Amino acid sequence: MAKKIEVGVLGATGMVGQNFIQFLQGHPWFEVRWVAASDRSAGKKYRDATAWRLDGDLPESVADLTVEECKPGNAPYLVFSALDASVATEIEQAFAAAGHIVVSNTRNHRMEPDVPLLVPEINPDHLKILPVQRQKRGWSGAIVTNPNCSTVVLTMALAPLKRFGITRVIVTTMQALSGAGYPGHAAYDANANVIPFIRNEEPKMESETQKILGELVDGEFRPHPMKVSASCNRVPVLDGHLETIAVEFVEKPSEQEILEAFRQFRGVPQERQLPSAPPRPVLYLPQEDRPQPRRDAWRDRGMTVTVGRLRECPVLHWKFLALGHNTVRGAAGAAVLNAELMKVEGWLD
Amino acid sequence: MAKKIEVGVLGATGMVGQNFIQFLQGHPWFEVRWVAASDRSAGKKYRDATAWRLDGDLPESVADLTVEECKPGNAPYLVFSALDASVATEIEQAFAAAGHIVVSNTRNHRMEPDVPLLVPEINPDHLKILPVQRQKRGWSGAIVTNPNCSTVVLTMALAPLKRFGITRVIVTTMQALSGAGYPGHAAYDANANVIPFIRNEEPKMESETQKILGELVDGEFRPHPMKVSASCNRVPVLDGHLETIAVEFVEKPSEQEILEAFRQFRGVPQERQLPSAPPRPVLYLPQEDRPQPRRDAWRDRGMTVTVGRLRECPVLHWKFLALGHNTVRGAAGAAVLNAELMKVEGWLD
Amino acid sequence: MAKKIEVGVLGATGMVGQNFIQFLQGHPWFEVRWVAASDRSAGKKYRDATAWRLDGDLPESVADLTVEECKPGNAPYLVFSALDASVATEIEQAFAAAGHIVVSNTRNHRMEPDVPLLVPEINPDHLKILPVQRQKRGWSGAIVTNPNCSTVVLTMALAPLKRFGITRVIVTTMQALSGAGYPGHAAYDANANVIPFIRNEEPKMESETQKILGELVDGEFRPHPMKVSASCNRVPVLDGHLETIAVEFVEKPSEQEILEAFRQFRGVPQERQLPSAPPRPVLYLPQEDRPQPRRDAWRDRGMTVTVGRLRECPVLHWKFLALGHNTVRGAAGAAVLNAELMKVEGWLD
Amino acid sequence: MAKKIEVGVLGATGMVGQNFIQFLQGHPWFEVRWVAASDRSAGKKYRDATAWRLDGDLPESVADLTVEECKPGNAPYLVFSALDASVATEIEQAFAAAGHIVVSNTRNHRMEPDVPLLVPEINPDHLKILPVQRQKRGWSGAIVTNPNCSTVVLTMALAPLKRFGITRVIVTTMQALSGAGYPGHAAYDANANVIPFIRNEEPKMESETQKILGELVDGEFRPHPMKVSASCNRVPVLDGHLETIAVEFVEKPSEQEILEAFRQFRGVPQERQLPSAPPRPVLYLPQEDRPQPRRDAWRDRGMTVTVGRLRECPVLHWKFLALGHNTVRGAAGAAVLNAELMKVEGWLD
Repeated sequence: MAKKIEVGVLGATGMVGQNFIQFLQGHPWFEVRWVAASDRSAGKKYRDATAWRLDGDLPESVADLTVEECKPGNAPYLVFSALDASVATEIEQAFAAAGHIVVSNTRNHRMEPDVPLLVPEINPDHLKILPVQRQKRGWSGAIVTNPNCSTVVLTMALAPLKRFGITRVIVTTMQALSGAGYPGHAAYDANANVIPFIRNEEPKMESETQKILGELVDGEFRPHPMKVSASCNRVPVLDGHLETIAVEFVEKPSEQEILEAFRQFRGVPQERQLPSAPPRPVLYLPQEDRPQPRRDAWRDRGMTVTVGRLRECPVLHWKFLALGHNTVRGAAGAAVLNAELMKVEGWLD
Repeated sequence: MAKKIEVGVLGATGMVGQNFIQFLQGHPWFEVRWVAASDRSAGKKYRDATAWRLDGDLPESVADLTVEECKPGNAPYLVFSALDASVATEIEQAFAAAGHIVVSNTRNHRMEPDVPLLVPEINPDHLKILPVQRQKRGWSGAIVTNPNCSTVVLTMALAPLKRFGITRVIVTTMQALSGAGYPGHAAYDANANVIPFIRNEEPKMESETQKILGELVDGEFRPHPMKVSASCNRVPVLDGHLETIAVEFVEKPSEQEILEAFRQFRGVPQERQLPSAPPRPVLYLPQEDRPQPRRDAWRDRGMTVTVGRLRECPVLHWKFLALGHNTVRGAAGAAVLNAELMKVEGWLD
Repeated sequence: MAKKIEVGVLGATGMVGQNFIQFLQGHPWFEVRWVAASDRSAGKKYRDATAWRLDGDLPESVADLTVEECKPGNAPYLVFSALDASVATEIEQAFAAAGHIVVSNTRNHRMEPDVPLLVPEINPDHLKILPVQRQKRGWSGAIVTNPNCSTVVLTMALAPLKRFGITRVIVTTMQALSGAGYPGHAAYDANANVIPFIRNEEPKMESETQKILGELVDGEFRPHPMKVSASCNRVPVLDGHLETIAVEFVEKPSEQEILEAFRQFRGVPQERQLPSAPPRPVLYLPQEDRPQPRRDAWRDRGMTVTVGRLRECPVLHWKFLALGHNTVRGAAGAAVLNAELMKVEGWLD
Repeated sequence: MAKKIEVGVLGATGMVGQNFIQFLQGHPWFEVRWVAASDRSAGKKYRDATAWRLDGDLPESVADLTVEECKPGNAPYLVFSALDASVATEIEQAFAAAGHIVVSNTRNHRMEPDVPLLVPEINPDHLKILPVQRQKRGWSGAIVTNPNCSTVVLTMALAPLKRFGITRVIVTTMQALSGAGYPGHAAYDANANVIPFIRNEEPKMESETQKILGELVDGEFRPHPMKVSASCNRVPVLDGHLETIAVEFVEKPSEQEILEAFRQFRGVPQERQLPSAPPRPVLYLPQEDRPQPRRDAWRDRGMTVTVGRLRECPVLHWKFLALGHNTVRGAAGAAVLNAELMKVEGWLD
C-alpha cells in the first residue's frame, strides 16, 4: 500500500480515544493525523491535552498533533468516534452530513433503523443499509457503529451456533474495570468486591444481540427472534469481559456439532485477511478452567474471542463460557475492523 | 441456661475448623472443650498445632486445649465436623456409631438417602429421617449435614418462592476466595482474574438444591422436581458468594408477590429465636447495585442472605441476585444453626 | 452519665463525615444531633443528602436529621470537623469565634503555632495552648486538630521510644485506598498496582511528627529536633496504613529496652479510661510476618496501633513496622479521642 | 549468526523455568533444545510434564522436547539453572565439573568467593574470577549467577550513582506476587493485604548489593563498603518490584548531577548491543507519580529499570524510587543477559 489513509479520532483525549490511538499505532492502512476533543482541549498539543492512562508511552506520532474542535472542517474523510454519549448524536450527525464516514464506538446510533451495528465476522452485509441511511438522512457521509463491549463477546460466541436455530439465551457477565470508562469506579468501591449493576448494560445486550444476529431484508433490519436475558456485573479485573452463557436451540445440536461450529467459524475479515482480523475469531480452549480474563483476553492483540467449558445445561440445552477483550474487540479494535471491512468493500474510495 | 453444652470440633486446626472455633466464641449454649485433628497434630496444644489464619487472635479459651486424635473415646456427645472429605466418611461414621451427634459441614454424607441435608429455615422436618438412619445403620448417634456454601445461598433465596411452584432455575455464581479452603488458589493465579471453574461445585448445587427443597415422605426424600443449572466462578473477593439467579414458575407471580414472599419469610430458627438465627433470614435490599459481597456479606454476623435487583427475565420469569457469607451461613454458622435446631427439637438431650 | 453531650458534624455527608457518624454510634458520652454540609445538601434529610459508602447501613438515629448549613447558629457546643480543606479554614474559624469547640480532622490549622495537634496518648499537655489561642484570636471557642492519618501511626510508634532520644527517622508508607477520600483513585489505576505518590503527604508527615513529639514551653511549640524522611505510597488495600520505620537514637537502646518501652506505653486515655482508648495503644506482635493491614488494622475497633518485626538496622539503629487504621485511629477515632480528652480535662464544661 | 547455540534449562518445568523458556522464545543467539527437571517429570514430553502458568501458550518449539534428568550426560554446553535452592548446589556443581557453563538464577552460589554475581551493566569484569573458580574447584566448566530479583533493581538504580561515593542506603521494597514462586502466597492471604515479610530477602539484598558494586582485585572480591538496610514487603501486584531508596554519599551531589548520571548510564550490554540489552538500562521518568509496577515494569520486554521522584532526603542525602520486572530483569532476563555477555567475552567458544 503506497500511502496510508489519513484518519481522525473524535473524542481523542478520553480513555476510549486513547485506546483508538494505541490500537492504530503501526496500522498498515490507517494513520491518525487528526484528533479532536472538547473545546477545553482544542488548540493544545495532544500530549498536553491528554492524561495518558494506558500502559507504555503516548505514541510520538500523535503527541504533537494539535487538538481540533469536534467540527468537520479540516477533518479527514474517515473519522473514528470515541465521543461521550452525551454529545455524540449531534457531532456524529454533523460529520456524516458533511460527507465523512463516521465509524463510531458510541451507543447513540446503534439501534437506529438505518444504521448498521456491525461485527464484521457476523453481519458484514448490514453495510447495505448505508444507501438507505444516506437517502433518508440526506447525508453524503455515513455512520457505522459497533456494539457494546459485552454484546460483542456474546454475539461472537453465538454466531457460529446461529445455524442451529437459537431460541433462548441466558447470560451473566463478569466485566472488567476498564469497561467503566475513566475514572469509572472508585478504587475503594471496587477493590475485593463485585458491583452487580452496570447502568443500561442489560437492555443493550438484549436488544443489540438481536439486531446483530438478525437479517437485513429489503432495507429493513429484522431482529433475530431469540430471547436474551442478561445479568451484568463488574469484577475487579483489568481487561476482559467473561460471560457464562446458556443457550436453547430449535433442535439440540450435539457436542461435536457445536465444537465443530466454533472450529470452522470464519468471516469476511478472515477471508479478506483484514489487518486486524484474528486468524481464529472464536477459539475454543480445551482446558477445564479457561478462558480466564488475565490470561486469555490479549490473544491476537485482543481480537480473538475465546470460549470454553462447553457442557450440557439441565435447563436450556448447552452452557459454556466466552471471553473477549472489552477495550479492543469490544471497542477500538471493533471499530477499526469495521473500517477495514468498509475499505475492502469500497466504502472508503 | 445454667451450664453450657460441651462440644467438640473434628478437623479443628484447618481453615473450616478455625471458622467453627471463631463462630462458637461466646455462644450462649455451646462451648468448645474438645478439639481433634490429624495424628500429626494430636498431643500438641491447639495454639501450637494451628496456623491461625482468621482475623483477630486465636480465642484464649481454646488455645490451651490439647488436640486429640479423631477417635470417639473422650469426645463430647455433640461434635462438629470440619474434616477433609478424604477422611470424613470413616471418622464421622465411627463417631455416629459410638453414639455421638455429628453435625457435619463435609460433603461426604450430604446426598445419602438417610442423612438430612439441613437448612433450618427451610427443611427442619428433615430431621425426622434420623430414626431411619439409626435403624438402618445400627447407630446410637447420628449424622446431620449442611449444604455446600453456594447451595445455601441459592436455597435460601429460592425457599420463599417455593410456594409459587419453581420449575427451572439458572444460576451463575461469583464465589469468594475463602470458599476454596486453605491454601486454595495461588495468589498469582487469582489476582485481578476470574477462575471460571470450581471442581464438583456445579453438580453439587444442582442436586443438593433439589434435596433441600424436596419433601420427606414416609421416610424417603423426594427431591424437588425443579431443574437447576449452575455455572460457578471464583472471583477475587474475600468473603461472600454472589449469585445471579433466573427462575421460572408454574405460574408467574407478580413482583409484589415475590417481594412480599421475601419479606415474610421466617422459619423455625426465627420462631424459636435460636441464638444464631438472623432476624430476617432473607433480606431484600432496594438499592440498584446491591447486594455486594464486601458490603453485605457480614450482616447479622454473616447469617443473613441478602437479595436484590428483582426484575423480569425475558427468558424465564424473574431474575435477581442473592448473596451469602460462605464460611458463616455457608459453613460454620450453618452447622451451628443445625445444632441449635437439634437442641430445641430435643435431639441433644 | 445521665445525659449525653450533643455534638455536631461539619462536612457530615462526605466520606470522613460518614466515618465520624459511624464511629460515634453508641458512644457513651457523645450523641450526634446536628449535621452540616454544603449548601447543596442543606435542608435535606441526612439519609437523602448522603450516598452512604461504609459497610452496614446508615445509622437510624442520624438518618432523619435535617442537614444544616455550615454556620454556627443552632449548632451544639462541640462540633467535629470533617470539612474539605478547601473550605475548612473559614468555617472552622467562624465556629471557634462563635464560641464552639471545633475538633477538626482537617489539615488546615494543624501547623498553626497556637493550635494543638493532638494525639492524646502522646501530647495531652498541648491543650494548654488553648488560652493562648483564645487570647490571640479573640475567640471564646477553640480549634483542636488531630494529625494526618499516616502521621498518627508513625508518632504512636515513636512515642514509646522518645525517652531514648530519637535523632533520625526514615519511614516508607504503604497506605490504604480509604485514605484517599472518595472517590479517590480510579479503580482502573489502583487495581494490582502501587501508586508511589500522595500529594503533600510526605512534608505533612515530616513536620507534623516534629510538632507532636515536641514540647509546649511558655506558650510556644518547640518541635522535636529529630529529622524525619518519608516516602509515601498507595497500595491496593482497603483500610490500614502500614509503615516501615528505621530509627536512630542519641544512644542505641537494646532490643529488650525497646520491646519493654512498647509494652509499658500508656497515656492519659488509658489512665482515665476514655471510652475510645484502646487498652494497649501500641501493641507489639511477635509473629514474623505481622502486622498486616487486613488482619490487624481493626484491633480494638481500629484504635490500637500494632508494631512488629523489630530488628537491627545496618544504617540507623533499629527498624520495625507499624500499622494503624487510617480512617479510625487516623481520622474519626483520633478526633473523638481528642474530644474525650478535652471532656475529662474540663474543656467541654 | 549462522546457527543458534543450543542451550538447556535445569528446572525447566517450574515457574522460573517457564520464564526462561518464554524469555528465550525467538532469541537470536540461543535456542532451547534440552530441558531437565525432577525425576518425576523425566521421560515425559515437556508439554505433559508442565503446568504452564504464564500468559499465552506454551511455546511449540519446546513443547515436544523430552524432559531429561538433571544430569550432565547429553546436555548442551550452556545451561541455565532455574533449580530450586534445595537441590541446586549439587546439580550445578556436577554440571560445572562436567564442563558445562551454568548460568544460574538460584541463590546457592551467589555469595561464594569464587563465583561471579553478575549484572552485566555494572560488573562485567567480575567474570574474571572464573579462572580462579576453575583452578580452585578443578572444574572445566563454570558457574555464573545473577542476583536476587529485588537486589537487581536496587543495584541498577545505585550503579549510576556509584561515582559519587555511596556510603549508606535504606531501601523498602514493595514486591510482586510473581516473585514468591509458585504457588507462593495463598490468594486468601494476599488479597487486599500487604505481607511485610519475605524470608531471607533482607540479608540477601544487603550483602549481594555490596558484592555487585564491589571490586574484583587480585582474584578477590572486595565488597563495596556501603551499608545497606532493607525492609521487604509483598504487595498484591502481579509483576514488578518497586523500591523506595534513600542514599547518602561521601559528598552530596546536586540534583542535576544525579539526573545526568541516570541519563548517561550505559554498560557493556549497550555498547556491545547484546540482544536483551535495553537501550536505556536506567530510565528516569519525570512524572510525579511514576514508576508504577503495572504501567512501567514491562518496558523493553521488562529489561529496563525505571527510576523516578528524585527529591532531597532530610535524613540521608537523596531519595527516589526504582522499579524493575522481577521475573525478567530480576531472573530469566538477567541470566540470559549474563550468557550474552559471556558469549561476546568469549566464554562460550
